[in-house]
Amino acid sequence: MNTFNYRQSFTLESGVTLPSLEIAYHTYGTLNSARDNCIWVCHALTANSDVADWWPHTVEKGLFLDPDKYFIVCANIIGSCYGSTGPLSVNPADGNPWYDEFPRVTVRDVVRAHHLLAEHLGIKKVFSIIGASVGGFQALEWAALNPESIGSIVLIATEAEASPWAVAIDETQRMAIFSDSTYGEKRPDAAAAGLAAARAIGLLTYRGPLGYNTTQRNLPGHDVIRKDLHRAQTYQRYQGEKLVRRFDAYSYVTILNMFDTHNIGRDRGGLDNALASLNMPALVVGITTDIIFTCEDMRRLASKLPNASYKEIDSPFGHDGFLVEHELLNSIIIDFFNSLPTT
Amino acid sequence: MNTFNYRQSFTLESGVTLPSLEIAYHTYGTLNSARDNCIWVCHALTANSDVADWWPHTVEKGLFLDPDKYFIVCANIIGSCYGSTGPLSVNPADGNPWYDEFPRVTVRDVVRAHHLLAEHLGIKKVFSIIGASVGGFQALEWAALNPESIGSIVLIATEAEASPWAVAIDETQRMAIFSDSTYGEKRPDAAAAGLAAARAIGLLTYRGPLGYNTTQRNLPGHDVIRKDLHRAQTYQRYQGEKLVRRFDAYSYVTILNMFDTHNIGRDRGGLDNALASLNMPALVVGITTDIIFTCEDMRRLASKLPNASYKEIDSPFGHDGFLVEHELLNSIIIDFFNSLPTT
Repeated sequence: MNTFNYRQSFTLESGVTLPSLEIAYHTYGTLNSARDNCIWVCHALTANSDVADWWPHTVEKGLFLDPDKYFIVCANIIGSCYGSTGPLSVNPADGNPWYDEFPRVTVRDVVRAHHLLAEHLGIKKVFSIIGASVGGFQALEWAALNPESIGSIVLIATEAEASPWAVAIDETQRMAIFSDSTYGEKRPDAAAAGLAAARAIGLLTYRGPLGYNTTQRNLPGHDVIRKDLHRAQTYQRYQGEKLVRRFDAYSYVTILNMFDTHNIGRDRGGLDNALASLNMPALVVGITTDIIFTCEDMRRLASKLPNASYKEIDSPFGHDGFLVEHELLNSIIIDFFNSLPTT
Repeated sequence: MNTFNYRQSFTLESGVTLPSLEIAYHTYGTLNSARDNCIWVCHALTANSDVADWWPHTVEKGLFLDPDKYFIVCANIIGSCYGSTGPLSVNPADGNPWYDEFPRVTVRDVVRAHHLLAEHLGIKKVFSIIGASVGGFQALEWAALNPESIGSIVLIATEAEASPWAVAIDETQRMAIFSDSTYGEKRPDAAAAGLAAARAIGLLTYRGPLGYNTTQRNLPGHDVIRKDLHRAQTYQRYQGEKLVRRFDAYSYVTILNMFDTHNIGRDRGGLDNALASLNMPALVVGITTDIIFTCEDMRRLASKLPNASYKEIDSPFGHDGFLVEHELLNSIIIDFFNSLPTT
């Protein structure tokens, strides 16, 4: 992991100014002399800059993130807790971590911060920008902020504006966190039980009916009347606790708030206008069982982009299909790259 | 509301014995002299015995719960807080409410308790038993416990065994409640914030993507960056608070646990066996956008019942469609009643 220290002030969309920025990032492969082989990967909600770790079977020779061909960059979003400025960073005003006083951050803020990193790395134009879920939010926002800097865009299971449905999911997660009365205490492990419950809510929406029913059936002999927990019950607890070990409630609330304000149409004459201005070749990928970003939503997104093709991944794993179905995804994205006009 | 006081002990499936039972119930219409015009309605999770109140446009002349033709009965489930024995009832052992010490109750326990009420009312055989959601759990369990006492069965958006998906939803709600550290305090309003979060989780699954996106879009001019809450956000909070005013966390956990152990195949040679033994005419109704009990699940249920017809309601309102789409439901159920052989 590398860290880019931006030692100037950075004003957020809310009007609040951060005195400086740290941006953690990973790179794989080498930037060529023409500086035109960069693939910028935007990570999803609780991931980090190490794509090769959280997106298995993608950063490999012959796959869509081939480090022999491309210079792959992924940066941790600000507001998160994997090395970029966020609620656990020290607030220079008082020398203590920000915790629940960290300012509101938008997807637009995140992308403007990452533009500073791109400039630092000497990248003027990326060959392709790729994002799934909240990663797609950033890719779209980047394309809207600076369309000339994008050669092509790959949007997987994502949307151009947080839907009421997605906001309701996020608000419910915040309600779970705030119902833990330790939220607000000045320590990184505050509201751990609330955070676990929030993650369990998220997981319901990432996996969906078929995901659970395919993988979490009770085994024969399970006695749920007298002694045993359901497998699905154990699974939810386990997933909650797993997030608590690697994340904190303050960063989680910050990125939920960031999610909710996502809207590439803001200050750009509305959503349809903003989408119509994105002329670069686009690949839009939906997952058949995704209940957060449904295929209907994804088809609508593709139809509003002037130069998009739409592909669907048939998977029982819901939204998490983008992590699980790497073989299908590799083939779809490589086909898309091959279809691009060579410059 | 009437109350049936059963002054004998009642042993639950868990082995724990309640010293007596109270069962709150409503009736509409009159039991005829042949005693063959009873429709028994089983209520869903947080509803009560007053069907005419929670299921609008059903208990009316000419509709499927026509009190001029039928004697309609609905009883509050034990473990709930609308008049039947539950966590807020007094534990005779110490003279205080049970709260979190109320024993585990199963759907089978609920139905066995309601059989006592049916006997008390002089009903040997019901013309039809109707249930949506957890109401359908009871209808199926009743049919399996005592098939001769059922003339026909109407199953709306329900299942014969709690699926891993449904259990995961319930466990997540419990996690939200338990993350409120006031859970366990001996007062009826303990864990109010956790209960509100749990309800908000439930609501996500009752309404689903289309439900929220159809009704909870932000209005033009909404400034979510600087001052306004999203409509979907306000809606989740409002719905959480609304439940807190009429329910309590202890009863809610009790009925979630009841939900999870639902399995009409238990001690009956498995699910397929139990379903194959239900020979009465059955109507199975799925709702196109229901994400808890999907239409695929409902079709599978119908296919395993020997004498079932399947109908689908096309609605954007998800699982809650069973409450909203009363016109479609009336027409489907009345057609079903008319198709039954007259005895």
